[in-house]
Amino acid sequence: MNKEKKSLNGNPQTSRSSQNSHRVENGFQNARPDNNIYFQEFEEKNADRLKIVPLGGLGEVGRNMTVLEWKEQAIIIDMGLNFPEEKTPGVDYVIPNISYLQKQKKNIMGVIFTHGHYDHIGAVPYILDKIGNPPLYGSPLAMGITKKRQEEFPLQPKLKVNEIKEGERIDLGYFSVEFFHENHNIPDNYGLFIETPVGNIVHTSDFKFDPTPTNAPPTDFEKLKEIGSRGILLLMSDSTGAEAEGRSLSEKVICENLEKIFQKAKGRIFASTFASLINRIQDIITLSEKHGRKVVLEGYGMKTNIEIARNLGFIKTKKGTVIPAEKSFDYPDDKITILSTGAQGEGGAALMRILSKQHRHFQIKKGDAVVLSSSIIPGNERAVQNLKDDIMRQGADIFHSQMMDIHAKGHAQQEELKEMIRMMKPKFFMPVHGQYSMMASHAKIAEKEGIPKKNIALIDNGFITALGANELTISEKSVPTSAVMVDGSGIGDVGGVVLHDRMELADSGIFVVISVIDKKTRKLKNSPDIISRGFVYLRESQMLLTEVRKKVMQIISQSAKKRKEVKEIKPEIKNKVESFLYSKTGRRPIVLPVVIEI
Amino acid sequence: MNKEKKSLNGNPQTSRSSQNSHRVENGFQNARPDNNIYFQEFEEKNADRLKIVPLGGLGEVGRNMTVLEWKEQAIIIDMGLNFPEEKTPGVDYVIPNISYLQKQKKNIMGVIFTHGHYDHIGAVPYILDKIGNPPLYGSPLAMGITKKRQEEFPLQPKLKVNEIKEGERIDLGYFSVEFFHENHNIPDNYGLFIETPVGNIVHTSDFKFDPTPTNAPPTDFEKLKEIGSRGILLLMSDSTGAEAEGRSLSEKVICENLEKIFQKAKGRIFASTFASLINRIQDIITLSEKHGRKVVLEGYGMKTNIEIARNLGFIKTKKGTVIPAEKSFDYPDDKITILSTGAQGEGGAALMRILSKQHRHFQIKKGDAVVLSSSIIPGNERAVQNLKDDIMRQGADIFHSQMMDIHAKGHAQQEELKEMIRMMKPKFFMPVHGQYSMMASHAKIAEKEGIPKKNIALIDNGFITALGANELTISEKSVPTSAVMVDGSGIGDVGGVVLHDRMELADSGIFVVISVIDKKTRKLKNSPDIISRGFVYLRESQMLLTEVRKKVMQIISQSAKKRKEVKEIKPEIKNKVESFLYSKTGRRPIVLPVVIEI
Repeated sequence: MNKEKKSLNGNPQTSRSSQNSHRVENGFQNARPDNNIYFQEFEEKNADRLKIVPLGGLGEVGRNMTVLEWKEQAIIIDMGLNFPEEKTPGVDYVIPNISYLQKQKKNIMGVIFTHGHYDHIGAVPYILDKIGNPPLYGSPLAMGITKKRQEEFPLQPKLKVNEIKEGERIDLGYFSVEFFHENHNIPDNYGLFIETPVGNIVHTSDFKFDPTPTNAPPTDFEKLKEIGSRGILLLMSDSTGAEAEGRSLSEKVICENLEKIFQKAKGRIFASTFASLINRIQDIITLSEKHGRKVVLEGYGMKTNIEIARNLGFIKTKKGTVIPAEKSFDYPDDKITILSTGAQGEGGAALMRILSKQHRHFQIKKGDAVVLSSSIIPGNERAVQNLKDDIMRQGADIFHSQMMDIHAKGHAQQEELKEMIRMMKPKFFMPVHGQYSMMASHAKIAEKEGIPKKNIALIDNGFITALGANELTISEKSVPTSAVMVDGSGIGDVGGVVLHDRMELADSGIFVVISVIDKKTRKLKNSPDIISRGFVYLRESQMLLTEVRKKVMQIISQSAKKRKEVKEIKPEIKNKVESFLYSKTGRRPIVLPVVIEI
Repeated sequence: MNKEKKSLNGNPQTSRSSQNSHRVENGFQNARPDNNIYFQEFEEKNADRLKIVPLGGLGEVGRNMTVLEWKEQAIIIDMGLNFPEEKTPGVDYVIPNISYLQKQKKNIMGVIFTHGHYDHIGAVPYILDKIGNPPLYGSPLAMGITKKRQEEFPLQPKLKVNEIKEGERIDLGYFSVEFFHENHNIPDNYGLFIETPVGNIVHTSDFKFDPTPTNAPPTDFEKLKEIGSRGILLLMSDSTGAEAEGRSLSEKVICENLEKIFQKAKGRIFASTFASLINRIQDIITLSEKHGRKVVLEGYGMKTNIEIARNLGFIKTKKGTVIPAEKSFDYPDDKITILSTGAQGEGGAALMRILSKQHRHFQIKKGDAVVLSSSIIPGNERAVQNLKDDIMRQGADIFHSQMMDIHAKGHAQQEELKEMIRMMKPKFFMPVHGQYSMMASHAKIAEKEGIPKKNIALIDNGFITALGANELTISEKSVPTSAVMVDGSGIGDVGGVVLHDRMELADSGIFVVISVIDKKTRKLKNSPDIISRGFVYLRESQMLLTEVRKKVMQIISQSAKKRKEVKEIKPEIKNKVESFLYSKTGRRPIVLPVVIEI
């Protein structure tokens, strides 16, 4: 067995990864050495300032996580995940990169959560054990969902969960945090008032102002003004709605519009929304009760979230309202609501299974009303269009949020954002939570409200803000923030190379040519084997395969004469087969030559 | 070499495709025999009717192609392509399925084109030679673009192109077609007035009403009314805008808004739009000339389309306006417009190369204005958001169609659609061109305009409409319309199996285990080889590989004792390796066991 052989045996990717110019984003990437020196100097220069280190949530919607540091102590706000996109096929979630925390070795006093949505709590099971399992602080609902999720990770350490009531204050070393009520589309959502050695910080959480919310007290403007009157050095405010003019819709308006559908519907109502929109779910249940409908719950996420929220009193149902699917056939159609996930056209969700006739209990029929009460997550537009088409084809009436206001986003729009700034009157401003264009729009709003441009930190993930009582400096370099992929049970073992390969595989498939040669004569011991997937339909491409096989036999017989080494033969097979396949098909599958010496 | 071996050698997919339950959509799929009988009976029952067979463009935006048949003769309206989506990775285009035409063997009298967009002409090079290369009829611009594109297919037969002037009438056997002017966002767009043995049909083409279009005469309502007065049996009308209220914007409004940007811009203007929006391109060139700017053209499609349109007089530029990129640096920034493709965030397009600093000549800098003058194709929302973010990060001002009306779609909206129906006063109505929800909305409009529901053919691709002077019947079954994929130079050789494999490969990659065993002893001749791509980063997974190798060695040594055949060993390796990898990583790569007997 020669050296080449061993390398192939041991690590088929070794030879290739050196050919790839793209960056390997593998695991928790470490800062480059030159950056280390920069950040040491930055630290020394700003020793008497508070450091704010956003590890996720800036320039993106999701994956929220921010570190606040003073001297040797740190606290963390939120620990969220994001969902994968086109460029990360097969990945389940994307989580923040915490190599900065592992390097800095600060004493993490605690993790504070604003609310129970996955983009704020979802990375807990992947990160917490790697940063010493610090205590967690958040609302009963946020902590309830966090605990429930942790049950899926039996090998993780037990969480140190602290449920905090509205208005409560906790001391975490140099920091002191007060939790105040903010409206959003999930109950038990907290804004944060944080006392730090340099001054007071307000973090708005995701928020909207709502005078008539579902199942939650209305926005308490007096309380917000009182907090503002304490003197706010820095306001960190939700930017997700900053490109939308006017004000967000109240949940009450949404509920009134939903009721119009309930009043008219003569058959079953299939209501689909996100499992995380606890308030909307409550609306649909309440409306069903009002109109004498029983409710069937479909979808795992929907059932779990409702269970948690019900146990905590955030969803109220009358006895007998919720019934199992089988029982629904005992009632007339106009007495049934089916509440499910799947309003985004997600492949495996309940509504999709119903539409594709793969659901155990339900199929769509004429007379049904299907209500899609959610926004469309960017990238899902085509799936939702197909969903709408299929619903109509199957004869149901459809109601969605482009037709009427049956969904409100949970985020403050321009007028509300202005009011927040006016109430807090901060010296410094940092737009958080949102795509860059949203944060930039929010920064413009703040400027118009009188905050000088130099006092606005419009930054991307990884750039450190050093905040003094009178000054704010932003680092010129970024700490590592490249996305860490969660795929199956692996965290960070899917990186740039693997994703690049997956995209190449998706594009034109793979083509493996296996030749066994005699160690001494160096001649082929059999006709080469070919394995291929995702390239062409092989049954109809026999000619192509025969020609490839001939080509490989030729190459090896030539090589035998010259007594070439395997490491010389392989690139030759690769190149010749690649160009041959391209000339014949116009496609470039990944060609892998395997040459085994026996 | 045993039987199994041969099968592996000859056709690695054979054994597997039988395991797959999903449908093989391979090549030009043929109708099922039971369907053949149905359609024979349908044909006999409706012998004295005109048959309308939509092969593409219904229930989808794109891939437009409709066949009209009377007795032994047929004409075809349009022959377009569609672009691939998430579920067809690696595919270049999707074209109509023409197995119906190959089976029916009608005499195809000609193909009539409405206009020069690829969703109406783009399938010509892939289909025409397969249906006997019939003559083509269309406007000079539509035919010019068709001819130019055909140059990329030197092996295809020479096209029989006929350029038709507005108002001209051609006789095609039993059919007679008159071409009339309709406004759209490309010039030289024709509606069709078709005399058939059962009555007159009007096909609107893609259209909008525009009293003040760019570079084209305004909509001639008198002409449309005159056509309507001839007595219209069936109106086939564009549904793309049928879900949008009111009226489409005039190109003049767009141009006025674009001019506001030209008036304010102090630096270079990067204007991006579709290469096919000839009128918008003209607007940007005219505005540049008016404001003393030279124009640089970037992007292959942009350059080709402008060349064709200029030669035909559909784009007018003053001498010296268009300059090469190198020359642009001789002028001050506020005298330069860069007109490019890439407003959709498409990977390789000029604007993307500029933003990612991979362009030969240009980079974005502070003071530049970037104008995205196009709608967002569903599915591209996330790419466009990232595009906007990057433009802002690089310091340019951005203008896009969600901010102001600098793009108008080319399709009539609800009020215009009503007017079309009123002018044509058809007895029967068929909504065409659009997603099902758009066609359904269009059908409702027609019903409100007084066309009885039974006279409206709201159908999907493949359903045959049999049209008589007083009746309309729709087939209950569909002729084959499954999408035919164009990938590289292959047409139809990528089907369901290959696409399914590509999606599985993208999800978790591939894992190939190669074992060479002695034919007599049946023992391993070497340690098994492992090849993997897209699964995990192998360099950090040595333990995993070692364990897999051990497992395989065990299986084979056990098998040797029992003298098992290769065909028994392979499934065992596959199953055991699959479950092992899943238990260790939570992922399911495609596992391919190769066992070679020597």
